[in-house]
Formats: sequence, C-alpha cells, structure tokens
Amino acid sequence: LNLKLDQNKLQKYKSIVRDIADQYINIHPIQRGGVLTPEAQKILLSYGDGYSMCDYCFKGRLDLIQKPPIHEFLADLATFLDMDECRVTPGSRTAMYIVMKTMAQPGDTIIIDSLAHYTTYIAAEAANLRVKEVPHNGYPEFSLNPEDYRTKIVEVKEETGKNPALVILTHVDYNYGNVNDPLPIGEIAEEFDIPYVINGAYSIGIMPISGKEVKADFLIGSGHKSMAASGPIGVLVTKQKWVDKVFERSKIQGDWSGRKFPNKEFQFLGCSPCHGAPLATLMASFPTVVERVDHWGEEVQKMHYLVEELEKIEGVKALGKQPKQHTLTQFESESFHQASERYTKKGYFLYNELKKRGIVGLHVGMTKHFKVNTYGLNWDQVRYVAAAFQEIAREQQITVS
Amino acid sequence: LNLKLDQNKLQKYKSIVRDIADQYINIHPIQRGGVLTPEAQKILLSYGDGYSMCDYCFKGRLDLIQKPPIHEFLADLATFLDMDECRVTPGSRTAMYIVMKTMAQPGDTIIIDSLAHYTTYIAAEAANLRVKEVPHNGYPEFSLNPEDYRTKIVEVKEETGKNPALVILTHVDYNYGNVNDPLPIGEIAEEFDIPYVINGAYSIGIMPISGKEVKADFLIGSGHKSMAASGPIGVLVTKQKWVDKVFERSKIQGDWSGRKFPNKEFQFLGCSPCHGAPLATLMASFPTVVERVDHWGEEVQKMHYLVEELEKIEGVKALGKQPKQHTLTQFESESFHQASERYTKKGYFLYNELKKRGIVGLHVGMTKHFKVNTYGLNWDQVRYVAAAFQEIAREQQITVS
Repeated sequence: LNLKLDQNKLQKYKSIVRDIADQYINIHPIQRGGVLTPEAQKILLSYGDGYSMCDYCFKGRLDLIQKPPIHEFLADLATFLDMDECRVTPGSRTAMYIVMKTMAQPGDTIIIDSLAHYTTYIAAEAANLRVKEVPHNGYPEFSLNPEDYRTKIVEVKEETGKNPALVILTHVDYNYGNVNDPLPIGEIAEEFDIPYVINGAYSIGIMPISGKEVKADFLIGSGHKSMAASGPIGVLVTKQKWVDKVFERSKIQGDWSGRKFPNKEFQFLGCSPCHGAPLATLMASFPTVVERVDHWGEEVQKMHYLVEELEKIEGVKALGKQPKQHTLTQFESESFHQASERYTKKGYFLYNELKKRGIVGLHVGMTKHFKVNTYGLNWDQVRYVAAAFQEIAREQQITVS
Repeated sequence: LNLKLDQNKLQKYKSIVRDIADQYINIHPIQRGGVLTPEAQKILLSYGDGYSMCDYCFKGRLDLIQKPPIHEFLADLATFLDMDECRVTPGSRTAMYIVMKTMAQPGDTIIIDSLAHYTTYIAAEAANLRVKEVPHNGYPEFSLNPEDYRTKIVEVKEETGKNPALVILTHVDYNYGNVNDPLPIGEIAEEFDIPYVINGAYSIGIMPISGKEVKADFLIGSGHKSMAASGPIGVLVTKQKWVDKVFERSKIQGDWSGRKFPNKEFQFLGCSPCHGAPLATLMASFPTVVERVDHWGEEVQKMHYLVEELEKIEGVKALGKQPKQHTLTQFESESFHQASERYTKKGYFLYNELKKRGIVGLHVGMTKHFKVNTYGLNWDQVRYVAAAFQEIAREQQITVS
C-alpha cells in the first residue's frame, strides 16, 4: 500500500519552515494577540507531546489535575474574567457550539450581531438553530445600536411566541475591530431573562473585561487569538447557575457491559484534548496576560497613530467606529487598489511591497481593503509600518499630505 | 479586578516543567505512539503560534492551503490509509462525533463494541444516539466475535424496524490492546448496507491499515496518540461516497445581512483550529510514520518478550488475546497488589519503585492491574523494563521463575 507513496517526495514534510522569520514585523489581523510569550515558547518543547499534562491525572478529568496546577489555574482564569467556573475547549468555536447546543433546543432562534464571527453562524447551523441578526449602521462605521437587541428580541417573541434562546454579542468584531460595550446589551438580556453570551475572542487576554459587571452568563475566549497560547485552545467561563447544565455529566451506559462514565462532561466529549502544548502555553503566558490587559490604553494609542498616518495617504480611510478603541482596523484603500491594477500580480502588489520592507501579515489579494493589527508592536515598529505605507504610496505617485 | 489575583502567586505558571525528563523510560499506555519525532520537535518552535499555517491561506479553507503543502499532505494521508478524502479535527473524538452526527439521526441506534473507548460512548450521548454493544468473551481474553455484530444488527432491526445507523469497531482497544481484524465486520456491515466506522486511534500511525481493503466507510486516527504529533489533532478519512454528506458546506445565511459562508464545512465548525503546532507536527512526522508502520512486527515482538518476562513473576499475567498483536497490554498483578498493601502510600508502590529505576508512565493507584506500552522503545530499554519489574518482585519476596 505504502508503495503508492514515494518516500522521496514525502521528505519535504520533514522540513517545512515558516518563512515569516523573526526579523519580519507581523501585522496579521488575527495573529497579534496569539504571539507566544518567551515563557510559552520555552514550555512548548517540554509539553509538546499531546498527553504531556496527564502524567499525574488521578481523576480522569483534565480540569482536576493538580500537577501541573491546572485546577488552580482554571480557578484563576475564572477570577481573571470575574466568573465562577472555567473549562478549556479545542478552540473558542467549540465553546460557542457547546453553549448553543446546551442552552437552546433545535429549531430555537438566537439573537446575534450582524458583525459576528463566521463561526457563530456556523455553530448555530451545526446546532440547528435559527439566527436573527441585530443590524449595524453600515458604511463607514458599521456600528451596532444596543437598543436594536430589544427590537429583535420582541420580533422573535412575536414570531415564535417565546423568547430567543440566547442573546449573543461579539465583543470585538473581526472585520472592523469595533468594540461594543457589553453592559447595555446585558441589561436588555437580563430584562427579558435571556442568557447572555459574549464572544471575547478578540478581547479576552488583551483588554480588561469583567463577566459579572457586564451581566454575562457566558464569556468565550481564544487562547491562540488573544491569550498568547499555542492553538487550538478556547476558554469558556460561566456563572455557577449554569455549571450543571452546560458541564453536564455523562449518563450513557453500555446496554450489555453496564459501562458508564459519570465523571466525564459529555458535551465536551470528555476531557478537552488540549492536554499538551495548548494548555501548557496558555498557563505559561497567563501571568503576562493578566499584566498586559492593564496596558490596553497604550496599545490603542498605537492604532490611533497608525490611522492618523495612513489617512494622510490619499484614498486611504479607516473603517469602523472612530476614534479606534481596538488595535485591529480595516482600511479602505482605493488609491492602492488603482496602483495595483498596473501590476501583473495585482493581488500581491501591497503584500509584496510591504514584504520587501520587512512587513508581513497582510492578506494576499486585498488591495481595496486591508486589515492591520498593531497589538504588541513597539512604537518603533508602528512608526516603521506607517512610514512604509507612506513610502509605498509616494512611489506610486499617491499624494501623502 | 485583577487585584483579586496575586501576581506573585501567578508567577509559578511561567515555569511549569514536566518532571518526566528525557532520562526516563516512559511506558505510559497512551503516550508511546504520540512521542514527537525529532523533526516534529524542531518544527514546534517555528509553528508554535496558533495561526502559523494560515500565512498563505487564499481560500479560507485550511485543507486547501498550498504553502506549506497542506492540501498535498492530506491527499497523501488519504492515500496512506487507502481512502479518498481526509480532514483533520481537534482530536479523534471530534471526528467520531462528526461522523455520528452526520450519519445518524437523533434517537437512532448504533452498534459499537463493548471495548470501545469512552469517547465513543460519550460522542453517541452528545449526538443523542442509543448504543447497542457487541459483547466480549470476558476474562482473560476479552475478545470479540465478529459474528456477534450480525446478531446485534438483527436485534436492532427487530427492535426498531430499521438498520442501525452505523457499525463501529474499535480497531485496538485501550484496555487490553486487543487487535480486531476489521474485515469480517466490514463484510457484515456491507451485507446489511450499514456504513462502517473504524476507530484507529491506537493503530493508525503505528500499524498498517487499508481502509478500502477492510471495507471501511470511515477511518478515524489520532495524531497525538499514534502519529507522533503534538495534540490535539484527529484524522478523518472517508470514501468519495460520503464526502458531500459529512463535509457538507454551510448553507446558513444572515437574515438581515445576507452573510453566508458557502465554502466552510459547517459540521467541522469551519476550519479545524489545528493550524499551528498540531498540523505542523503531524506533517513533519508523516514520512517517519509511513516508514515505521512497516516495522510493526518487530514492535510486537518487544511486547512478546515483556509478557514472557513479566509472566515469570508469580501472580503476574497478561490479559487480552495471546499471543499479543499489539504493544499495549494490561497485566493483572495480584502479587504486586499484596506487596503494595504493606506500604503507607499503597497506590504509589509500583509507581515509585519503577520511578526509582528510571521508568515512568504507570498509572498511579494501579497495582492489581497495570498497563504498559512498549511502542518505540529499543530492545535495551525493553529488557531493562522487564528486569526492573523482576527486581521489584524479588525485593518483595515474590517468586520469579
């Protein structure tokens, strides 16, 4: 059988390398908050094997392991987010799916914002739920009005005769980096007595947030998006109220053997299989993460600077709510798009021009719009990125004011 | 808020270390096949960031990325297992859940073997399915009779008026390391026209297997269990016949925005979030994995040797089918259990005695029974492990013949 595979051709897999080496500045919109801390990088090697955290598992439950101190860590993580209980999942989308599946019945309607991550829609599809979107106000702000949540809840009640099963807010959206104040929506959810879920994939780990202050029932975070962890790892925190429902223990029993698994949380399919590098790096980076959220204000200042400098380029404009409250921004760039039309490999124009200057992370193919994330870059790097865009503009005879 | 967390106390997370260092021989039953190759260890650092494989994603689909050559790799992996299409998932349990959820309707019955991994039961519970177990013949062999699959299928037809939705076989079980010939069961499944799923978490990547030869519709493998990959990563391969059904594209659409995601495979919740260390290490180890399955016979010889040597110890007996066809074995050990009763920390007796001798991986608390996996140990190490057990026995005045 293996004769069908040519070992010589397979050898290339042994030496794949990421050509974005350390000397590049990476402005990739979804990668900045996931860049590993030095501690996490160091720990990768000792915890690289997939079951490396299970050496001292006595109870068959990842969240109860005490060596390394996973149990204590999850409690600290819940405290950090001002909630009661925490579990990890293989990615935040799994956390979202579990919340939807356990809190809603197939056919139910849930309220989501129209800027939600694609996985929110898809998790709803997988859980067989209907979504009702809260609109945004369109170009150029794409902002949500919290009161529209009330309107949509009332619509669902009229259409279905009952409350929507969940109210979901994307704390920070992945297209414009708009930050939504979660509290007004939490108050509306509370008024109607609907459980409230906040997707914090682009906020938890870089921005401060308190689950209870904003009246959340569930907060979902992403280790590899915003908590300096190697993926895949998601974080789900909730209040005591929902623990038995969402972390429900297995009741299935073998009809012949009588085998049962009453300590396993079955909606998680047992222990989340993050028991190696993902959880080890999440833990190693945690002290830094706790500290870094306090410096969020300065991180946003860097994006303010970049917006100011890039908007000096004719035809370049930052989209989303201004002034920016986040380090992820989409720019429209009609002028760069026109310049790219003169190139054979149009979609590579801006990408290549930036890479020549040591900057990577722009989506190839994007010239009319592009997204940048400055999170964790130092001021010199941010200034360099701004100057690079301006230099590219000047080379294309685009006015820089 | 963060005032509730004491930064001094958090510092410990920065320096967690796995105290099972390289100088130990690890005989952990579930860890041997997942030990990283040197290539995988090397690649961990460059692909440690969670989105590190997405730098050149042009189609929004992990499985279509060409740099690094993920698309080609998945095709090679399908070829290696003699099937048509391959996807990765965050752990093989997720692959099992997806197959159950897409191939069965809630309330349906599926046939599983009574030695199945706990996650097979729990995935069925999460997918709201009823399980009908194929019995084993009990102590000391715990072996399955393929014909019992026919009996159970007929039972389900009588009880429900229709075929069970799936026939599932655990190729190698995790308790006794019994290897089941998948073909006779594949023939029965084919006779009744029931899709056939093989859980190869303890075989794919260490033993040769051809999906089509054994008439499988789905093969499920585990990167961190048996393919020398950093977890979590599972492998799902299937025939062309099931691609549209199981890898179904998303159809959900935002009711207000009209947003849709028709290239995403929604039962996978979009791209499986293995786009960093898990997939990079799976790829880096693949050439070695392809090669190593050819040496399975010699690996099994090492367990034959260990069984022979350990059974020289009075009261120690290998369970499961003999002679062993796998490197994972459970031993009963009444004599060690009695010896442990003389110790204050009974459950630690055998564990500590082995650790003193540089051997780790035994489950703490297990003395009446213990499990050992010799996969990938060299002959010197296997001989050393056997001698260590005998030495411990002699020290406890247990006869070694």
